[in-house]
Amino acid sequence: MAEYSVTPWEVKGDLDYDKLVRDFGTSYIDDELRTRIKNHTGELHFMLRRNVFFSHRDLGWILDRFEHGENFFLYTGRGPSGNTHLGHLLPWIFTQYLQEKFGAELYFQITDDEKFLHDRKLSRKQVTEFTHENILDIIALGFDPKKTFVFSDTDYIKTLYPISIDIAKHITFSTAKSVFGFKNSSNIGMIFFPALQAATCFLPSILQKKNIPCLIPAAIDQDDYWRGIARDIAPKLGYYKPAQIHSKFLPSLQKGGKMSASSPETAIFTTDELEIAEKKIKNAFTGGRDTLKEHRKYGGNPDIDSAFQYLKMLIEEDDKKLSEIEQEYRSGNLLSGELKEIAAEKVKTFLKEHQRKRMQAEKIFDKFILRD
Amino acid sequence: MAEYSVTPWEVKGDLDYDKLVRDFGTSYIDDELRTRIKNHTGELHFMLRRNVFFSHRDLGWILDRFEHGENFFLYTGRGPSGNTHLGHLLPWIFTQYLQEKFGAELYFQITDDEKFLHDRKLSRKQVTEFTHENILDIIALGFDPKKTFVFSDTDYIKTLYPISIDIAKHITFSTAKSVFGFKNSSNIGMIFFPALQAATCFLPSILQKKNIPCLIPAAIDQDDYWRGIARDIAPKLGYYKPAQIHSKFLPSLQKGGKMSASSPETAIFTTDELEIAEKKIKNAFTGGRDTLKEHRKYGGNPDIDSAFQYLKMLIEEDDKKLSEIEQEYRSGNLLSGELKEIAAEKVKTFLKEHQRKRMQAEKIFDKFILRD
Repeated sequence: MAEYSVTPWEVKGDLDYDKLVRDFGTSYIDDELRTRIKNHTGELHFMLRRNVFFSHRDLGWILDRFEHGENFFLYTGRGPSGNTHLGHLLPWIFTQYLQEKFGAELYFQITDDEKFLHDRKLSRKQVTEFTHENILDIIALGFDPKKTFVFSDTDYIKTLYPISIDIAKHITFSTAKSVFGFKNSSNIGMIFFPALQAATCFLPSILQKKNIPCLIPAAIDQDDYWRGIARDIAPKLGYYKPAQIHSKFLPSLQKGGKMSASSPETAIFTTDELEIAEKKIKNAFTGGRDTLKEHRKYGGNPDIDSAFQYLKMLIEEDDKKLSEIEQEYRSGNLLSGELKEIAAEKVKTFLKEHQRKRMQAEKIFDKFILRD
Repeated sequence: MAEYSVTPWEVKGDLDYDKLVRDFGTSYIDDELRTRIKNHTGELHFMLRRNVFFSHRDLGWILDRFEHGENFFLYTGRGPSGNTHLGHLLPWIFTQYLQEKFGAELYFQITDDEKFLHDRKLSRKQVTEFTHENILDIIALGFDPKKTFVFSDTDYIKTLYPISIDIAKHITFSTAKSVFGFKNSSNIGMIFFPALQAATCFLPSILQKKNIPCLIPAAIDQDDYWRGIARDIAPKLGYYKPAQIHSKFLPSLQKGGKMSASSPETAIFTTDELEIAEKKIKNAFTGGRDTLKEHRKYGGNPDIDSAFQYLKMLIEEDDKKLSEIEQEYRSGNLLSGELKEIAAEKVKTFLKEHQRKRMQAEKIFDKFILRD
């Protein structure tokens, strides 16, 4: 099994992730945990093999409970502020794997209220449209309709609100401020929102009237929110603290930062035409050298190459193929343009299939939706 | 028409009300306004004749709209933190009069979330029980079931929440803090709550898809909340600013302050047994003199006498009878014990009738309730 180091933000990217783990006080996913997971799943998802999901909080405890016959549920979410891009899909694809291998229920919260409250320019109508579009992408990933419950805050508020006020009663403005960085100029809807986000950690336990362990797959930057609110409140309400499994970010197609829906050129959207997606990859930031001569001599750097990172983190499941591409690129045999060609073809194949499933998702939409 | 001066907090009570009017910048209800109201109602409610409802904001504008054929709706509310006492009934009785005389719809908001969030000792279950009990008292007052919509925040949150986030988006923590006195230790549910309270000002306009003037009958201490949040936000959302009509407080049965559900001896509850109510009045603070001799010589002071204030503000609708009692008391002919006897009989008659209607209210309960 090849071990890769993931560096979405150039070379010092690695240091940033280590800093996050240190600052937040999370734990790395080590070989022992990977072996334990493999015992249940039969195979390790490539995102685990390649350390895309690399950090956690209480993952061992989740496996303990599971091994004692106690099922956990998965909780993830989406803020519908725009169209879905491939960076959003990364943790969702992994979540689908966890659902399938552990038979876990998934509660998928669409925080339409948060995005409306956060963005001065977004109307409720726009957010409602993005909500629908985003849910199509979720359904397209193959979640089990019997075990997947997608809900938007405004559609499911009658159920969520009583839980949220139970939580809110324990959260002072000071606490919310220190965790979320609120200011005196923050609006009072945003200030209340952390209670709604935490509510889903306890929702299945309330609906099913028993304490159910919760595992949250999400990018690592979310950790602090769960630690500061939901994990802190859980024992006060008599529930388990939610566990977490953390991913790195799919890097931007341009130099620096992560993909962002607000800068279209940094991301490939699930609804992009294939030619547009291809063009974005061809224009992406590379780890190639300035001249052909230098590239042949010194080789390329896959660690900072967007096209390579797409293959590694999201698209190329075959470790052997990926390893060959990496070696060829490092050696200088494979040029940036050729690497981009490979990635573009893979991405187009992925997108075409995703867009086909996305069309079908419209038909089975209601099977996934939880409403009051 | 006899003019009374109301002084629930001893003699300087009057000054306090004037100070509130000055501080808040509201207007007194004057003879011109009373005449305009009388043109529509045929008779002036004794609470208008006796200046129990004494102050307003934009009441003239409400009458303008009404005279131009535009109906207004009434909005009042109740925080269900305990059982209903007679002090709570005061503005509701007046609201029923306004509904009847102006044919106005009434939206009655039960802020169960607020009371749960505010009081550390109250459980959601307790608040739900008080909600039911309080609504029985509302229904017992004879509101029109076709024009009265009673809802609790948690039962009606699916409708209220989208309106509330529209409002919340415009209210910063600073604003909510300055209006409601929030602190860093306030919980985030309470901080969001002003948006929910303001939502009802615009709810009928949203439900009926046209801009409908809103009149809020409430004790004057509420004025600042409406001014600071709902009236400030209304033009930003394209609605009329809610108008208000303000009452004084029914005084405590004990010396100083207003009735409070948290001190049972200061208030008569609608569910009190008649003998208990009688006993509370007999033990009430009086405006009588220390000795019989002094009383006969100097007379009693009805302005600070709880039993008299009950008669004047709530129970004795007949101005002539009230005036006679007042004169007899002031002259010293009527003793405190005798005045209490009169008040106790009146209160018992009122309570008995209210309790009868309250029992019947159980049967027509659902006709009044708005749920998602």
